[in-house]
Amino acid sequence: MKPIGVFDSGVGGLTVFREIARELPHQPLVYFGDSARVPYGTKSPETVIRYSLQAAAHLLDRGIGMLVVACNTATAAALPALQAQLSIPVIGVVEPGARAAVKVTRGHVGVIATEGTVRSQAYTRAIHALNPDIEVIESSAPLFVPLAEEGWANTHVAREVAEVYLSPLLDAGIDTLVLGCTHYPILRGTIEKVAGEKIAIVDSAETTAHSVRESLDGDTPNDGEPEHHFIVTDATERFRRIAGEFLECEIQNLELVSL
Amino acid sequence: MKPIGVFDSGVGGLTVFREIARELPHQPLVYFGDSARVPYGTKSPETVIRYSLQAAAHLLDRGIGMLVVACNTATAAALPALQAQLSIPVIGVVEPGARAAVKVTRGHVGVIATEGTVRSQAYTRAIHALNPDIEVIESSAPLFVPLAEEGWANTHVAREVAEVYLSPLLDAGIDTLVLGCTHYPILRGTIEKVAGEKIAIVDSAETTAHSVRESLDGDTPNDGEPEHHFIVTDATERFRRIAGEFLECEIQNLELVSL
Repeated sequence: MKPIGVFDSGVGGLTVFREIARELPHQPLVYFGDSARVPYGTKSPETVIRYSLQAAAHLLDRGIGMLVVACNTATAAALPALQAQLSIPVIGVVEPGARAAVKVTRGHVGVIATEGTVRSQAYTRAIHALNPDIEVIESSAPLFVPLAEEGWANTHVAREVAEVYLSPLLDAGIDTLVLGCTHYPILRGTIEKVAGEKIAIVDSAETTAHSVRESLDGDTPNDGEPEHHFIVTDATERFRRIAGEFLECEIQNLELVSL
Repeated sequence: MKPIGVFDSGVGGLTVFREIARELPHQPLVYFGDSARVPYGTKSPETVIRYSLQAAAHLLDRGIGMLVVACNTATAAALPALQAQLSIPVIGVVEPGARAAVKVTRGHVGVIATEGTVRSQAYTRAIHALNPDIEVIESSAPLFVPLAEEGWANTHVAREVAEVYLSPLLDAGIDTLVLGCTHYPILRGTIEKVAGEKIAIVDSAETTAHSVRESLDGDTPNDGEPEHHFIVTDATERFRRIAGEFLECEIQNLELVSL
């Protein structure tokens, strides 16, 4: 059985990796974190496309049978290019999140994401393609990424930052909030407290994992402990530490490559 | 008169650029921000050396007569390699900061910097080379960079983050605090409030500009409005916005290059 490739600019996509591993507990996965060139969120679309194609080429050499683009910025910028150039299925994080949002909303969706994702308006387009009557407000929340990576997700500082970022969306009357960056599920508890019980949270890591399971349609191992692999382009020890915290386990099979 | 090259991984080195422009108001400067590969602070020394040599080669092609490495991480990792390979003077930010700290301290120096700079122990070595009896404590303050870049330097959140980062240093009895990342002068007001009046602040942007003036020894234009140039490797509009805020002026002569 071919492994599934999970690609992100750094550690954020590990939230997607974690959800896929929960949905498909016997499926081997190969995680690729482009830690030498993280973050993608402030880079231009042309650069993100170039980097994504390089990462995909490396994962194809590893024999993957499906590619999950576990990074909203890379999905927004590079998904069409990846789907055009690769002969295997490629799943991004935007479409599953947009579908989940359309399913639960009563008409007012807020999206928080990186600057690059917000600028691309990828969520607004994906939601409007399903239902043009839904109002969508997108807003960037750039400090959430370093807060998650520094292990500050459940601090008072994180809560104050969340209040600043969410208050314009809450004031605008959203009923659904899409976590449009794969780092943000790490701050989900804090975000939920600030948003309050009445706001439905759409976690694009969870919704993407559902999409992966559906598209495999049972074509996945159904027993055995799978061997996962992790590939990074820089700073192996930093990745090992943060990934260990995100996945709550010790990271095995970690490799450094140069693109 | 040849321009001086000022090199940083992104926008942080603009604090050094600003101080050099103040010290030498008629000297033309060329700023190089490697915004496609920012941040350097979480990358390995080998990668930082490779990137720094590429940036220096580009600036040499522009005819610079001196190179200022306006990034603590790049100075800590790559200054010896740059000095060995370039035939023009190369000035880093660590040595001037270390000298200023040794001059003002009563024996207990704290250094805040990125993870990469702290791991390199470059400040401890530079200070001990001048006076081995001085006690040096280094501590990373990674959230300061995104706070500065997001324009949150003078917010309540920044103050709370500063309290968390500085309290171990203050509890350890430091009398001098080195701002060992070129982003941190943007937060100087907040840092000073938390540190209190009794702590001397060493701003490596200021001390580096003094070093540049001293090493030129009068060999710099003494009239005329200089024409500065700015070169970035990605995300030109983001650089224009943040640089405009840092330098408090509109950015002219901004160019995008690919390395």
